[in-house]
Amino acid sequence: MADSQPLLSLDGDPVAAEALLQDVFRIVVDEVIRKGTNASEKVCEWKEPEELKQLLDLELRHEGESQEQILERCRAVIRYSVKTCHPRFFNQLFSGLDPHSLAGRIVTESLNTSQYTYEIAPVFVLMEEEVLKKLRALVGWSSGDGVFCPGGSISNMYAVNLARYQRYPDCKQRGLRALPPLALFTSKEADVPPSDQRGCCHYSIKKGAAFLGLGTDSVRMVKADERGKMIPEDLERQISLAKAEGAVPFLVSATSGTTVLGAFDPLEAIADVCQHHGLWLHVDAAWGGSVLLSQTHRHLLAGIQRADSVAWNPHKLLSAGLQCSALLLRDTSNLLKRCHGSQASYLFQQDKFYDVALDTGDKVVQCGRRVDCLKLWLMWKAQGGQGLERRVDQAFALARYLVEELKKREGFELVMEPEFVNVCFWFVPPSLRGRKEDPDYSERLSKVAPILKERMVRKGSMMIGYQPHGTLSNFFRMVVANPALTRADMDFLLNELEWLGQDL
Amino acid sequence: MADSQPLLSLDGDPVAAEALLQDVFRIVVDEVIRKGTNASEKVCEWKEPEELKQLLDLELRHEGESQEQILERCRAVIRYSVKTCHPRFFNQLFSGLDPHSLAGRIVTESLNTSQYTYEIAPVFVLMEEEVLKKLRALVGWSSGDGVFCPGGSISNMYAVNLARYQRYPDCKQRGLRALPPLALFTSKEADVPPSDQRGCCHYSIKKGAAFLGLGTDSVRMVKADERGKMIPEDLERQISLAKAEGAVPFLVSATSGTTVLGAFDPLEAIADVCQHHGLWLHVDAAWGGSVLLSQTHRHLLAGIQRADSVAWNPHKLLSAGLQCSALLLRDTSNLLKRCHGSQASYLFQQDKFYDVALDTGDKVVQCGRRVDCLKLWLMWKAQGGQGLERRVDQAFALARYLVEELKKREGFELVMEPEFVNVCFWFVPPSLRGRKEDPDYSERLSKVAPILKERMVRKGSMMIGYQPHGTLSNFFRMVVANPALTRADMDFLLNELEWLGQDL
Repeated sequence: MADSQPLLSLDGDPVAAEALLQDVFRIVVDEVIRKGTNASEKVCEWKEPEELKQLLDLELRHEGESQEQILERCRAVIRYSVKTCHPRFFNQLFSGLDPHSLAGRIVTESLNTSQYTYEIAPVFVLMEEEVLKKLRALVGWSSGDGVFCPGGSISNMYAVNLARYQRYPDCKQRGLRALPPLALFTSKEADVPPSDQRGCCHYSIKKGAAFLGLGTDSVRMVKADERGKMIPEDLERQISLAKAEGAVPFLVSATSGTTVLGAFDPLEAIADVCQHHGLWLHVDAAWGGSVLLSQTHRHLLAGIQRADSVAWNPHKLLSAGLQCSALLLRDTSNLLKRCHGSQASYLFQQDKFYDVALDTGDKVVQCGRRVDCLKLWLMWKAQGGQGLERRVDQAFALARYLVEELKKREGFELVMEPEFVNVCFWFVPPSLRGRKEDPDYSERLSKVAPILKERMVRKGSMMIGYQPHGTLSNFFRMVVANPALTRADMDFLLNELEWLGQDL
Repeated sequence: MADSQPLLSLDGDPVAAEALLQDVFRIVVDEVIRKGTNASEKVCEWKEPEELKQLLDLELRHEGESQEQILERCRAVIRYSVKTCHPRFFNQLFSGLDPHSLAGRIVTESLNTSQYTYEIAPVFVLMEEEVLKKLRALVGWSSGDGVFCPGGSISNMYAVNLARYQRYPDCKQRGLRALPPLALFTSKEADVPPSDQRGCCHYSIKKGAAFLGLGTDSVRMVKADERGKMIPEDLERQISLAKAEGAVPFLVSATSGTTVLGAFDPLEAIADVCQHHGLWLHVDAAWGGSVLLSQTHRHLLAGIQRADSVAWNPHKLLSAGLQCSALLLRDTSNLLKRCHGSQASYLFQQDKFYDVALDTGDKVVQCGRRVDCLKLWLMWKAQGGQGLERRVDQAFALARYLVEELKKREGFELVMEPEFVNVCFWFVPPSLRGRKEDPDYSERLSKVAPILKERMVRKGSMMIGYQPHGTLSNFFRMVVANPALTRADMDFLLNELEWLGQDL
């Protein structure tokens, strides 16, 4: 029965709510912000899954628990979680802890609203527009459109869907069966998944093609050169081939910053090909987009202003926090809303007392949409474009430092000179040094990285990813992204690998 | 040049980071947790967009700002944001502030990891599995699969994609052109968008069909009865009609808790039809799924255990925070991974030192995926299934109280007796009372809700949505979801509408 009392939980009791949150916040400060970022603490506390299940006591029961038990649960969750903010976490394309971003995320979570209308998200509707405008300006566009998506893969899908809709608006209503067979193009390099992500990432174009009903066969793989860059001449060849087979080319997805090698496709040359054939140029700059902030390095993306769409994830190199994934469009014809909108405006009231053009909900295929702009806006306000630029430049400089140090040491071999902050290298253990000509060298070398990975994780000293690549045996991919890194952390990486691998 | 010093931002300076976060947290406590939930404060501080832009000074500049300025920005963001936690925010299907959930969200944000591998999210991989298992058990399944998605619309798309893949595994590679024309079915009622969401929500099936390449024409609309429930006999008719037109029916999307009326489709009868025709039964229980927690009310979803997939958003009725959207599957054949996986296991290393079956990244079409399980897990641990059940029961009871009070007052008219916590009603202002037979009654009545909405928002006293529905003029849709609500809030709603509309 409802009476005038709220439930006996903390509902309607802001004093108790505040007390709980104060306690949890203190745990977060102690265990994540202090200990988690402290190089002398472990980056992870490895447990086998069965043991971890026991330790966490995950089962959800009928009875609730005391506040003290809940606090202990928060401590346990943190204890056994990987500290992605730790200065020795080199495993992913995201790392570090930006306090301004985290502040923005805490405010976002406390306000708990959805991005779809000015009515319920007035601040965030205007803020998203402003942030997207700034990102577009860095691409080189003075106008355009865009939206924050739940991750780069969905940004890429949006781009593919927009491109096919622009060419065949009919497909929205009638579906792909009404269309000729379509073809889209991306490089083989973009298709390479890091093993640490179990093949989810740069399969995004193929995964997207399957999800969007095009089928993976519609994705044509363009050759990449030895540095991982798409070869424009091969793109031409693949387009001709697709046409000869009766398919209609409609989109090229170039990559600015591939996942493993950190390669940048030659956008000018690719844009020429797209222009010649009338194809939509999408640039997957999820990883490399943040380089646009650097006057020194933005030449790597020269030509990006000629794209039709760009996917850019500030949650990666800028440490804006998962997720912060912008899809940017050059379009000024309201394509987003026409493509994704319900196109039934006669059904909707236009009788609101404010300009309903501010209601962005119909731009997306989702309904509720998280607020992903505040964290980036707040860190930009605090550090300025200037501070973010220095962060990017510092990552490049530290990666260069690592490369130079690595060259001085026996047992380290670069896969190639990096042009970005992915430093790919082999650690060659003592027993394999000078034995490159041995027939089983490759096979033996390929076993080194997995063993070292296991050792570092069990020890909790650091985390770094590895993968094979084409015909190349397993090598480490070091990612220099955490803005708190120093040269000491680079030295540590090399020393630690030598230490862990001295008996191999 | 990189040297051994971190940047002059707060990077690598946990003491400064902590000080900033302490200050921001204090602002959140004061402005959101205390004032935001206080009924004597405003629910919103309405500003016209141009004025708000000035007040917020949104521009992103080259120079950074001082800590004091950043704190002031946080205050301004909160000041002008709608307080969805306020006891007079009745506008959406989510509201309220659950402190345990918010605690879980703060921990999630501070740990900032992605859900894809056991390696980088050991706690959350196991926890997601456990939470999904619990939700499945409430559906009535002792086994199955599932995943948290970025919103209910994407859960629905996943279901449609899985259903077509199960029937035509070929389509993943070859696309829809290799398939016969497909047909899926949902009720007209499920297709009704609330105007306050600008048509984004329950267009999800149509939007999804367009995005997935099926086209909106593939969605067949089944009639609903006067209470908004799908009519199984009409579903039969529509299936026959689709077949006669040469289409292949493959999926029915039933709704448990429609957005406007809160209607529950008759799942048993629909399941019979699906079984007879061999169709995939998806239940969009984004809104109504949480009723499964209540022994008293779960009969509304009787038959849900016969579904193939269920979309359930605990961020709605359970106040788990945006977003918490589960897609649950009865399947035990690893359909999710087969459908969405890159199917290129030969490319991936199986040389990890733990069971790679724990790496769930390949179950989804996204790459990075937010951790959405901790907030729900923590609130469940704290309150128990018991506490959550009481929360659901209390919402029903308060909705009933509101209905009874509303009947006692002149000028309020129910659209229908609610069976859920959506209470739909007209406020008939003094000048329209007793004039139902006037030819312009409907037209005049339809103008009342927009005027009252504007008045309440400008005053900041409360927020409640309205929309027309079929031939019915604009009516209010009251949503009783915030667990902190009391009878006094229901009385306030009625009094306030009378006050705001006394001169109409």
